[in-house]
Amino acid sequence: MSTDVIKFASNLINRESVTPTDAGCQQFMMELLTQQGFKHELMNFEDTQNFWSVRKGKTEGPVFVFAGHTDVVPTGNLEDWHTPPFEATEKDGYLHGRGAADMKGSLAAMLAATQQFVQDHPDHKGSIAYLITSDEEGPFINGTVRVVEELMNRKQPIDYCVVGEPSSTEKLGDVIKNGRRGSLTGFLKILGTQGHVAYPHLADNAIHKSYLALHALAEEHWDDGNEFFPPTSFQIAIEQAGTATNVIPGEKYVEFNFRYSTESTADGLKQRVLDILNKHQLQYQLDWKLNGEPFLTPEGNLLTAAKKAIKQTCNIEAEALTSGGTSDGRFIAKTGAEVVEIGPVNKTIHQINECVKIDDLKKLVDVYYGVLQQLLAK
Amino acid sequence: MSTDVIKFASNLINRESVTPTDAGCQQFMMELLTQQGFKHELMNFEDTQNFWSVRKGKTEGPVFVFAGHTDVVPTGNLEDWHTPPFEATEKDGYLHGRGAADMKGSLAAMLAATQQFVQDHPDHKGSIAYLITSDEEGPFINGTVRVVEELMNRKQPIDYCVVGEPSSTEKLGDVIKNGRRGSLTGFLKILGTQGHVAYPHLADNAIHKSYLALHALAEEHWDDGNEFFPPTSFQIAIEQAGTATNVIPGEKYVEFNFRYSTESTADGLKQRVLDILNKHQLQYQLDWKLNGEPFLTPEGNLLTAAKKAIKQTCNIEAEALTSGGTSDGRFIAKTGAEVVEIGPVNKTIHQINECVKIDDLKKLVDVYYGVLQQLLAK
Ligand SMILES: [Zn+2]
Ligand SMILES: [Zn+2]
Repeated sequence: MSTDVIKFASNLINRESVTPTDAGCQQFMMELLTQQGFKHELMNFEDTQNFWSVRKGKTEGPVFVFAGHTDVVPTGNLEDWHTPPFEATEKDGYLHGRGAADMKGSLAAMLAATQQFVQDHPDHKGSIAYLITSDEEGPFINGTVRVVEELMNRKQPIDYCVVGEPSSTEKLGDVIKNGRRGSLTGFLKILGTQGHVAYPHLADNAIHKSYLALHALAEEHWDDGNEFFPPTSFQIAIEQAGTATNVIPGEKYVEFNFRYSTESTADGLKQRVLDILNKHQLQYQLDWKLNGEPFLTPEGNLLTAAKKAIKQTCNIEAEALTSGGTSDGRFIAKTGAEVVEIGPVNKTIHQINECVKIDDLKKLVDVYYGVLQQLLAK
Repeated sequence: MSTDVIKFASNLINRESVTPTDAGCQQFMMELLTQQGFKHELMNFEDTQNFWSVRKGKTEGPVFVFAGHTDVVPTGNLEDWHTPPFEATEKDGYLHGRGAADMKGSLAAMLAATQQFVQDHPDHKGSIAYLITSDEEGPFINGTVRVVEELMNRKQPIDYCVVGEPSSTEKLGDVIKNGRRGSLTGFLKILGTQGHVAYPHLADNAIHKSYLALHALAEEHWDDGNEFFPPTSFQIAIEQAGTATNVIPGEKYVEFNFRYSTESTADGLKQRVLDILNKHQLQYQLDWKLNGEPFLTPEGNLLTAAKKAIKQTCNIEAEALTSGGTSDGRFIAKTGAEVVEIGPVNKTIHQINECVKIDDLKKLVDVYYGVLQQLLAK
């Protein structure tokens, strides 16, 4: 299975599947899974391809899901790549190409681990399933979120889910993500009265009015976080106001983002922002986008199995963290499943010359295999 | 002379002289002035046409200058005009067309007043001069500022100058501008460290850092103004920072503008801005543009003559103000001349359907005539 994972990863990397394009990646995966006895269901929505595949074992048991995405982020400037981004290239012990680490390498490791596990344990208990989308790097509207919606409608249980996101930071397996912070974005327009700088008494500068309220928001202590989450953080990401040096702006546009712990809720944060704005007697318009609620998979069968598999394969103690950005794990967690993210070192993801250590990919197969074995072997 | 002013104004309006184009306006003016015994000197710089014309009287006496511009601002949406902007149209007692009020009407009134005055007083004392540019509405780089530079180099004295800017607000002659505030613009870049919103501890949000310092600038009391000037005012006109909701911005760009009284100096204001920024321990880059220094023409021969001429013609007491934007008067004031701006009602300037009351244009001839008479008649 060691050589298969490189073969599989290369096949996937060679397909130019920039979000939401799939470029045949899912077809390739399904063909391999068919050979292992999986049954597939396409769940395409709008421009996005998704599939849900299941291999039922011989006896009752938990439903275990491998989740991931076939799409990749754009290449950036092609001339800066040392190897062609859509030609998988082995070099100095690394496999190079867009998606090598995020997350075609992980998909290949899932496939290789599944192949081996089914061969070794054809009569495993429970089910192995795949939930794969071509829209994780994009707007995540028609991908995992809609598949999960559909699965929940039919009351499809999911017990455990391993997402292939590149969770490792320095060495393979050093970090498992067992949760993610919530992400909430606010779109704020502060209103004043436009005028000419030569006649300030006729105007009400929206920029000048904004400072104390925005400063109060930036300084606010939202919560202390908890054992699993750092404190909620608030960042103003965008400010735009004014058109010309001689015009006093009548509007100021602001975008801000919360990354929030399970100690806060989206509704609670919204209310506190309103309170601060109102206390400063601003006139404003405010819209919200809830990008993802926080989720947490505490110590349990999945996390235990994952840590043990990593210890056996990599001989390190994995740390379970909830830091970093959002992932599709948050959607799957809504089913009540235990969800963890385990994948390659993320140093080069979304960058020029993305690559993954060939040795790490081989180890990742063993880690995934180890998890399957602990949870589904008889 | 009453009919001449409309004829002259119409001739000028019919020429499409959007900055810095002159479209023959100056040629037309010089031909009329030639008939009154003026000698011309072209002072074209780059794309800008300027002329300086002088009629020497019989005896020694003050140098009196009419100053103005032949260029106009663009029309805006042509379909919104009720009459073609470059076809002078008399309608309901108003003369319509781009530049009717700013300031082709004034140029016509200067020409008509000069014609009549020279006819009535061929042996006047001192000199009458014209300083005309085609770049007042634009970047004012190659217009009046360079002509004045040249005149000062040759030590050409100027005692009095009437600029034809539309100074009146409700009724012709209600306001004379006897000075202007200075205008100083600052271009500020506040520096932080860019990062991802999910990793705020690795970044230093340039927006968050900016608030207290900018608030302090917005709240600062710069001076009290004086008898002639309102207090110095400070307005932040532009703010720009950030590119995406998930990126903590490493830079924030700010443009601000001072309109300042003669109680402050550009250098003094600059230093105080630096002091406030430094007190807040910001890292920043700051560039400046001095758009114009303030000038003031206190009570004296010119202001007295102007008020008297207005009283005689319009039967109102003109108020001398320094409010509003900048004008070319600030450049001419550098010669040491007394400078005032007297012109039509400015309600429609720079707007769609710019127009001037025909009756006001005729009165403006009398006002200009009255000033000439008091200062140059024997
Ligand atoms: Zn990914
Ligand atoms: Zn003007």
